[in-house]
This record gives sequence, C-alpha cells and structure tokens, in this order.
Amino acid sequence: MSKNATVSEKRFNRLVATMQAEKLTAFLARDTSDITWLTAFEGVFDDEQAHALLVSASDYCLHTDSRYASACRAAAQSSPVTVDDRRVSHAWWAADYLSHADIQPTTEEHVAFGIDDGITLAEYRVLVTAFAGELPDLQIVETHDVIKRLRAVKDAGEVVRLRAAQAITDVAFTHIVSFIKPGMTERAVQLELEDFMRRHGAQDLAFSSIVASGANGANPHATPGEDKLEAGQCVVMDFGARACGYCSDMTRTVFMGEPDAHLVQAYRTLREANEQVEAMLKPGVTGAEAHALAEAVLAAGGYGGKMGHGLGHGVGIDIHEEPVLSPRNTAVLETGNVVTVEPGIYLEGDFGMRLEDFGIITEDGFEVFTRSTHEMVII
Amino acid sequence: MSKNATVSEKRFNRLVATMQAEKLTAFLARDTSDITWLTAFEGVFDDEQAHALLVSASDYCLHTDSRYASACRAAAQSSPVTVDDRRVSHAWWAADYLSHADIQPTTEEHVAFGIDDGITLAEYRVLVTAFAGELPDLQIVETHDVIKRLRAVKDAGEVVRLRAAQAITDVAFTHIVSFIKPGMTERAVQLELEDFMRRHGAQDLAFSSIVASGANGANPHATPGEDKLEAGQCVVMDFGARACGYCSDMTRTVFMGEPDAHLVQAYRTLREANEQVEAMLKPGVTGAEAHALAEAVLAAGGYGGKMGHGLGHGVGIDIHEEPVLSPRNTAVLETGNVVTVEPGIYLEGDFGMRLEDFGIITEDGFEVFTRSTHEMVII
Repeated sequence: MSKNATVSEKRFNRLVATMQAEKLTAFLARDTSDITWLTAFEGVFDDEQAHALLVSASDYCLHTDSRYASACRAAAQSSPVTVDDRRVSHAWWAADYLSHADIQPTTEEHVAFGIDDGITLAEYRVLVTAFAGELPDLQIVETHDVIKRLRAVKDAGEVVRLRAAQAITDVAFTHIVSFIKPGMTERAVQLELEDFMRRHGAQDLAFSSIVASGANGANPHATPGEDKLEAGQCVVMDFGARACGYCSDMTRTVFMGEPDAHLVQAYRTLREANEQVEAMLKPGVTGAEAHALAEAVLAAGGYGGKMGHGLGHGVGIDIHEEPVLSPRNTAVLETGNVVTVEPGIYLEGDFGMRLEDFGIITEDGFEVFTRSTHEMVII
Repeated sequence: MSKNATVSEKRFNRLVATMQAEKLTAFLARDTSDITWLTAFEGVFDDEQAHALLVSASDYCLHTDSRYASACRAAAQSSPVTVDDRRVSHAWWAADYLSHADIQPTTEEHVAFGIDDGITLAEYRVLVTAFAGELPDLQIVETHDVIKRLRAVKDAGEVVRLRAAQAITDVAFTHIVSFIKPGMTERAVQLELEDFMRRHGAQDLAFSSIVASGANGANPHATPGEDKLEAGQCVVMDFGARACGYCSDMTRTVFMGEPDAHLVQAYRTLREANEQVEAMLKPGVTGAEAHALAEAVLAAGGYGGKMGHGLGHGVGIDIHEEPVLSPRNTAVLETGNVVTVEPGIYLEGDFGMRLEDFGIITEDGFEVFTRSTHEMVII
C-alpha cells in the first residue's frame, strides 16, 4: 500500500469504530471534503458535491461520475477504495449497492444506515424512496457531523500540510508589508497578496482575501474595493493559502503612518486578548471559555461587545471546520485540534482591527503555526 | 428608489406571483445566490450560506449576522428589503417573525409556508420544530428550485453583466495564445490566465481554471499540474471570470504545433457539434434535443459515447444554473435563458478536447456572447 493508502485506512478505521459504537451497518458520506479526507486522494476532487462514499466494515466504495472516474480510479489503485461511476443518483446507487453487495456489517444487528444531516432535504427524500423500495427493513439514521468530528483531530500528515500553507501566508505578509503604500486601492493590495501566494507555492487561495481600510475595516467580511488607503488609517488584511489540499488563515492589521492614541490603545487591547487566549488554550479548555476570555480582555480595555463574531474556528481541508471557539461550543478542546484565534474590535463608521493566528492544541498547550509578528506594523 | 431597488422589486414580484399560483403565504429563501438575485445587493455577500430572506406579499425581510449587518443595512437603504440581525437560528427567526409580524398573505388561505428543498436536512428538522411550536397550523411546503427557475430567465441588467464577464474572458484567451509555449507547465499557464483576468476587470474567477494537456485533457475536470506542454499535443483550457457578480464560462482547445490527422479530424467533428447546436437553439427546443444533436454529430464523426457529460448548463450568478442541456431536461428553452454549449471528445490515455461558448436564447435563435474563434489555434 502507498503512504496515502495507509493514511486512508487509518481514517476509515476511525469512522468504522464510530459506526460500531453507534450501531450503524453502513454510512453514506456525501460532503466532498469528508470524502477527500477519508480517501486521502490528492488532486482529484474539486469543489463540486458530485461524489458519494459508502462505508461498511469491509468495503469503501466511491460513487462518482464520468468527469472524475478515471482520476478516481488512478488514485484508488493502491488504495482500499473501489470506484463506481454508474449513471444513477447517489441515493439509488447506495440502495442498490447495499441490497446486492455482500457487505460485512459493522455490528450483528444489520439494521441501520447512517446518513449525514448536512445532505439536502431533496436528496433525503430520494434516499427514503430508494431505501423503501430496495431495503425496507434498513432504518435510516440521521447523524450530525460524524466525520467532521473525526476531522477535527489532525494527524501528522495534516499538520505538515497546514504548516506549509501557513508558511506561504507568512511570506506573503512580509512581502505585502514592503509593497503596501498610502494611495493604493484595497483591491490592488488584494491582487498583489493573492498573486504572491499563488506564485509562491499556494495551489489556490483558502478564501477570497479581505483588505479593508479605515471604516471599511468595521465590516468583518468587507469586500475589497476601489477605496484608497489613507495616512492615519489602519488596514485589516485577512488571507490564507491552500497548499497540498489544506488551508491557512491569518489576519494582520497594519497602520498607515503613526497611529493616534485611540488606535494604539485598541491594538494593545486586541493583542492582549489574542495572547491571553493563546496562552490559556490546552486540552480540557472549552471553546466557550476561550471566547469568554477574549471578550473579557476586550471589555476590560473598553471594547466590550465590539467583536460580534466568534473568537475562532477549526481549519483543515475546509477553511471553517470544527471545533469553534464561541459561546455555543461548550465541549472541551482535544490534542490535535487546529483552531484560529482571531479577536476583533469593530467600531462602525470609525475603524476595525483583527489579529488572527492559527495553531494546534498540543498535549499541554497551544502551538502557533503563524510566524508573523504581533508588534504594531507601521507603514 | 435606486435602479437596483427597481430591479429587486421586479424580481420579488415574479416570486410573489409564483407563490400566489402555488398558494404559499410566505417563502423562505436560504441560498445566498438566490438572495443576491432577489435583493440585487452588490458587493455585500460572499460565498457563505449565512443569510435567510423571508418573502410575503408585503414584506421582504433579510436575516443575517453581525459580520454582514452593516453592509446589508447600507445596501437596503433605498430598497424594499428590511434587515434583521437577531442572534438566533434562521429557522427560529422565521417562525418568530411570521408569528408576530403583521404580514399580508399572498392568498386568502393563510396556511402554507414554502421552503426550498435545497436546505440541509438538519435545518429542515429545526424548522419543523420551530414551526410546530410557534405556528402549528402553518403547513410547511417543500418546493424545488422555485427561485432558480426564475433566475433562469435573465433580465437586461444581467445580460450586460454576463457580456462584461465574457469580454474579459475573450481578452484573456487572446493573451494566453500569445503566452503559451511548449515546455511550460499546465500550472504556469493557469496562473498567467487567472492573473490576467483578475488584473483586467474580473472581480474574481468564475471557477478554478482547467489547463489540461495531452492525455490529461481526457479528464474533463483535470487539475492543472506540473506536466509540461509538449509539441504534438492539444491543450484544453476551460476558464471564466466573474464581473459585477456574474460569471462567464468558455473552453478552447489549442494545438502545440501542427496536429496529426487524428486530432484534426476530431476537432472538425467537435466544431461541427458545437456549431450545429448553436444554430438550432431557440425557444421551444428542449435541453434534451440539443444534447442529442451534439451526440449525433459526434457519433457520425466516429466519437459516439466519448463525451460523457451533459452538453451545457445555465450560467449567471452561479457558474452552474438552470436550464441544462442534457438528456434529463425535457423542458423547452425560453427567451432569456443563458446556456453554455460545450461538446467534448475524451479518449482515455490519448487526448481530450472541448469547445465551449455561452450565450442567450433570443426570440428566434441563440446569440453567442463568446467572441473567440472556432478555427484551429496552432501555437
């Protein structure tokens, strides 16, 4: 078996163990990122949700279409995965496959078929019809984020890829600091940042970059436009690369000339929030606790209620993964979780700033992948 | 009202008319592209599915979160849309809003709430729970592609935007023909193509471009890699820009030096398939008929069964829209539909080629937006 096949086999084993615990005979993965993770195929899938992967204890079968079939077959050659490109819907394929294949159930009770509740309602209706016809005794069990929870704990190969993506992003930040000048448009800075990443190892962008100056920075998801950078403003840059299939995510706020006392005070508070959280993260801390600490530090500095968004999120194959650092995550963080820490201060009509790193929860703390400085960068 | 507000009002009126015909009191839009189309907001939304729009005869209310709220409020100022950023799930917000708001129903039977079956199964379950609590008498009706069918008929402002996106793409093709040389990698050609579009008016790419040489071209969705272009091969380039929120989509296959007789014959057949379909498209023709004609021309040239994918698809805010030109679309095309025509020939292990234009169904034919030549381009 190839190295990727061994990686893939380990991931399938983690899923099958979960299926056994949940008494699921078989499981249908439909999210392309989930399928990318399970198969460990590289350079085969794009962002279309055009594939289905049926997992039982003995069998991992990928249903795809003619556009991807030959690339999937090539990738599957030294892999535990088989490939089928019959021209039927995923739902009918799954029902037919399960009713004819001699699959080995994960449990003695051969009764439950797990699906992910991230599928569309339309596809669910087709599945119900297909299974009622082919396998009337097989109960359909709706599960939530089963594979996404497995993906939240990264393996060594994933950490290498995440670090590679961040290394490109750090180099791009160094470059853009030497490039950016008052009078440039946000859009021109965005183009330079993105071109640089793509020409220095990024296979793609992790997401469309944000470059937001002055009051535009107060919109956390601002779209870069023709506004020109002006002296006295701060500029929020939120960007990331995709390398070897994995994302990076970082934000830095830079200052166009010497900032006034208000900006300095806000940035000091922001940095304090970022660094206090990074110092407290470790297994056993909850996402809600991390978020609450950031809110408390911001409030103590005079910026209570000015963040508005969650403090952080998981990063991996997707730019937004589990776990999240937010009030709604009361679960504890685990070794191997990779998360962003991105406190923000947004004063509508005035300015916005955000300071974002990302890194991994280790056995006793948090190891930051991001190498760029937290010092004020004054252009 | 601003021009965009008038456009938006017209689109809402089309939806409300459909709701009346279907006896729907209110409708919940959840797809961000559907919401972008209805509101005609520009530069506000990104690709996150973070918004919900509740439509009744009297009221269009957008539910978003703090990250987008101020941009949405600014865009809504001269618009019929109101904005709400309460921190609750879309499902609970919709149930609460409908139970408290003094909305004017579209019909006298105040009973049916339309949802799109493209929502996730998870969200559907929350909706059912929320409505059972707040509005036990309001029946939830699952609808399919109601707004997407409206979006399939483009208005004048959309045609301007689609043409603008294609103009950038045509210029990029002219540029890449002067740039591409044997010995370059597929990846280098992709980077140049994409940089060029982004620096010449594209706000973004419509999708990640395909540059596939030699046998790689036989994978319709090949990922550009480090393979070098070689004399004697053909190279498939499939790319598009996004401009003013709308996509373009085009494919050309170019030849590295004089092609052999087999490639010439294949290209002649491919071009014939493209041009015969473009000549027959008009209102009243079905998507299935267009596809069948292309298959017949390809088969007559000796390439029966070598296309594998559908002949074409709608293009608009999304790169893949309704209607499709494929065996599964037996509905007739209408004036205002915008579709691609993209026959392909894929011979595994040997070569692939595709010739793709896009354009609009007019009252008596098909007007192609694409300006680039169908002649063989020999580098």
